[in-house]
Amino acid sequence: MFRVDLNSDLGESFGNYKIGSDAEIIPLATSVNVACGYHASDPMVMSRTLDLAGAAGIGIGAHPGFPDLMGFGRREMAVSPEEGKNYVLYQLGALDAFCRTKGLKMQHVKPHGALYNMAAKDYALAQAICEGIKEFDSDLIVLALSGGELARAAMDMGLRTAQEVFSDRAYEEDGTLVNRRKPGAMITDEDEAVRRIVRMVKEQKVTAITGRDIPIKADSICVHGDGAKALAFVKGLRETLTAEGVEVCPLSKIC
Amino acid sequence: MFRVDLNSDLGESFGNYKIGSDAEIIPLATSVNVACGYHASDPMVMSRTLDLAGAAGIGIGAHPGFPDLMGFGRREMAVSPEEGKNYVLYQLGALDAFCRTKGLKMQHVKPHGALYNMAAKDYALAQAICEGIKEFDSDLIVLALSGGELARAAMDMGLRTAQEVFSDRAYEEDGTLVNRRKPGAMITDEDEAVRRIVRMVKEQKVTAITGRDIPIKADSICVHGDGAKALAFVKGLRETLTAEGVEVCPLSKIC
Amino acid sequence: MFRVDLNSDLGESFGNYKIGSDAEIIPLATSVNVACGYHASDPMVMSRTLDLAGAAGIGIGAHPGFPDLMGFGRREMAVSPEEGKNYVLYQLGALDAFCRTKGLKMQHVKPHGALYNMAAKDYALAQAICEGIKEFDSDLIVLALSGGELARAAMDMGLRTAQEVFSDRAYEEDGTLVNRRKPGAMITDEDEAVRRIVRMVKEQKVTAITGRDIPIKADSICVHGDGAKALAFVKGLRETLTAEGVEVCPLSKIC
Amino acid sequence: MFRVDLNSDLGESFGNYKIGSDAEIIPLATSVNVACGYHASDPMVMSRTLDLAGAAGIGIGAHPGFPDLMGFGRREMAVSPEEGKNYVLYQLGALDAFCRTKGLKMQHVKPHGALYNMAAKDYALAQAICEGIKEFDSDLIVLALSGGELARAAMDMGLRTAQEVFSDRAYEEDGTLVNRRKPGAMITDEDEAVRRIVRMVKEQKVTAITGRDIPIKADSICVHGDGAKALAFVKGLRETLTAEGVEVCPLSKIC
Repeated sequence: MFRVDLNSDLGESFGNYKIGSDAEIIPLATSVNVACGYHASDPMVMSRTLDLAGAAGIGIGAHPGFPDLMGFGRREMAVSPEEGKNYVLYQLGALDAFCRTKGLKMQHVKPHGALYNMAAKDYALAQAICEGIKEFDSDLIVLALSGGELARAAMDMGLRTAQEVFSDRAYEEDGTLVNRRKPGAMITDEDEAVRRIVRMVKEQKVTAITGRDIPIKADSICVHGDGAKALAFVKGLRETLTAEGVEVCPLSKIC
Repeated sequence: MFRVDLNSDLGESFGNYKIGSDAEIIPLATSVNVACGYHASDPMVMSRTLDLAGAAGIGIGAHPGFPDLMGFGRREMAVSPEEGKNYVLYQLGALDAFCRTKGLKMQHVKPHGALYNMAAKDYALAQAICEGIKEFDSDLIVLALSGGELARAAMDMGLRTAQEVFSDRAYEEDGTLVNRRKPGAMITDEDEAVRRIVRMVKEQKVTAITGRDIPIKADSICVHGDGAKALAFVKGLRETLTAEGVEVCPLSKIC
Repeated sequence: MFRVDLNSDLGESFGNYKIGSDAEIIPLATSVNVACGYHASDPMVMSRTLDLAGAAGIGIGAHPGFPDLMGFGRREMAVSPEEGKNYVLYQLGALDAFCRTKGLKMQHVKPHGALYNMAAKDYALAQAICEGIKEFDSDLIVLALSGGELARAAMDMGLRTAQEVFSDRAYEEDGTLVNRRKPGAMITDEDEAVRRIVRMVKEQKVTAITGRDIPIKADSICVHGDGAKALAFVKGLRETLTAEGVEVCPLSKIC
Repeated sequence: MFRVDLNSDLGESFGNYKIGSDAEIIPLATSVNVACGYHASDPMVMSRTLDLAGAAGIGIGAHPGFPDLMGFGRREMAVSPEEGKNYVLYQLGALDAFCRTKGLKMQHVKPHGALYNMAAKDYALAQAICEGIKEFDSDLIVLALSGGELARAAMDMGLRTAQEVFSDRAYEEDGTLVNRRKPGAMITDEDEAVRRIVRMVKEQKVTAITGRDIPIKADSICVHGDGAKALAFVKGLRETLTAEGVEVCPLSKIC
């Protein structure tokens, strides 16, 4: 039996600023990554987001990022591993306060943006982040780039680990994502994107940009809810996966 | 048997900015209020502060404030009760993450600065804050201005409540603090300050600025560690209290 | 000959967050108030906003607010007059840097949100703000609530002053806006709103909520670009004003 | 005739946080770099700092940094050249507002911390920053690491350029600073530090860490005012320079 999770970023509004299609993506996702007030969100948004996610009964995760609201946490910052650990801990705790008061249990942690990318490449940073997660709640699942350093550090530390793949990105032979600036980096044909996902889930393989097949683990697929086209794609992906005998379910049932 | 707690603000440094005499005041206080990253502090400072406080074995409390780092949380902000509640919850959770990973238990919550003052006067805001605290952890003690609305809301909600008094401030007949701009607002004679405290603790009375005695409850005394003079005062106060048969101990033994 | 300006807030996006319909409202407004990075906007947004406004050749003003991004500058903050002055100066300078490098001249200053409201009621704060504006550039026009303390302070200081009126708000007999929570505070009938504006401009009178006519000065009307309905209203208002022989033009031609 | 400037960072306090020995270093420096509210400082601090610097009659420069108050602007952030340019412009303008209202003229611009280091290595970023400076005021002096990319970009653009050297740092053969983690990176012997400075100024040479002499241009020396030892060093350095026939004067007399 094959299983995969569909995860989506949620609750990225801030103060007077609304962003994302939270209500539209929730019925299609099985896990959501909730922003925690550093790169996006604020306590009011966090409370409302957890109300939405809790009512839907989907897997709830923390989505901690860099303290860079102006850059939406997408710009690499030269933080030390200890800073990375403590920034994650701070945000985990803040989100958990709202989970607790609403009777919800946090399922996973997925670092956001530049922190996600840096942790996928830097084992020392990844290890420090995982240390923080483990000390906070050793039952939490770490959701990380498939084959990256964060996934490796999480497994090395004995944490439940979910490997994430992308439907719209090409892979290098070493399993890393092809840089967006390189030709062919984006998978624009939606049918091809779906076929690739199905194969990653059922065969644990993907064709790298070089044309060669590489092994890949796909516990969760990153999906987006921005716009009708994106939502239609997720709906189609979900239907195809189900038709292919893949159960679409939260991470907690997989890892 | 009389008991009183000595509480002090702690961990108010931020990034490259150092403030306060944390190491000096810790041995003299029985409870500390730890800043949570809104009006002061950051995740690195919070981690170090809890290491210090944890090693000393004193009562640890959250000290949530307004999101106004530039004003150190000392400027009133027209937040709604719901905003007040969620801002407190966010900070409670963030601090608690560090408590949890260090094996420490949070003892109390004391709002900071303008949030403390506003909650002492505004029952709706006080109630919302107490709701958040209760939902987060119904065993937490609320440390609030003696006789103020926050103390009242906490007791109305069945929360453990500690009433705080000030050694250096005069009181109006209705139990509120005399506005700092009024003559006589500050008690500058240190012996008088100590005598007033002893009386508040043992007789539950204080002489108001009008000359009339009023009832007052003193579970905790706010003390400061800024400078040799302040530290000497706290040391003297502690010695006098002990000599007077008052046990100086953390809030958890009192409320 | 009657003249009136239509002013609109502009450039309130921040980082990844987009807000407002800047491109739609620009052709309908004669002056714009550009956010300066405290309650909204950032240097990238400010640069792009001035490009848009500069190309349209409309009057450009600074729209300084409180350092409260989370509250969009809409929450009153207990700042001192000196803080108010320096916060305005900081933002004036920041926006002016982009004006200078783009060959644009700043026409006016309109405080934003809670700062606008507080300055309309507090003469000392209003005076400090005007002092800052005058020291920065004594040719700048202060755009302020018609009849409020900021308008008064600006005139007392010899600054060019523009009095602003609202089409969708009722007025008390003393010329202040009716509190939004009171019944009848909002003028919801659009035809009535337009008629009131025409009368304010041509007769310098408006009917207060009590039914009595009061004098009012209307140099500028605050208009909004959020949504098709708001834009249609502004278009209609503009046409009616023109048909009524009122020249719709920037503040610099009026004050 | 030899001339050199002594520059020092100033006005890095923030809100309730005091840092630095501004009053002590001012009489010893000939130019000061004033923080502009991104990595440090706020409008109140900027106003007070310019009062101090203006009264002393020394050269005043802007010290723009990254929007990273928590990291004091010392952590590299992956900003685009356009972001770098606009962040500098924003801060230049903000500081200039206070200069204007106090009748002071800005002399120079020195990027702070990680922005300084990144601009010294990245020509595209350096060029964008210089573009902003030139568009703002083409008479401003760019104060940059001697031999770095920012100095090169400034000269390529025809801007007045001052090359900065460090008394306490060793140099590689290519003129870059030896990484602080490498042994021998710091010049700890104060007499040697002074001798090296004198030689840099008078002979335009310094002995690299390899033992080989390299050419170096020294228009300005970075000095610090933190602590009695640092202040004594600057005093001694200043006396030696004067005794050696080097005029210690602001950048405006040199570039």
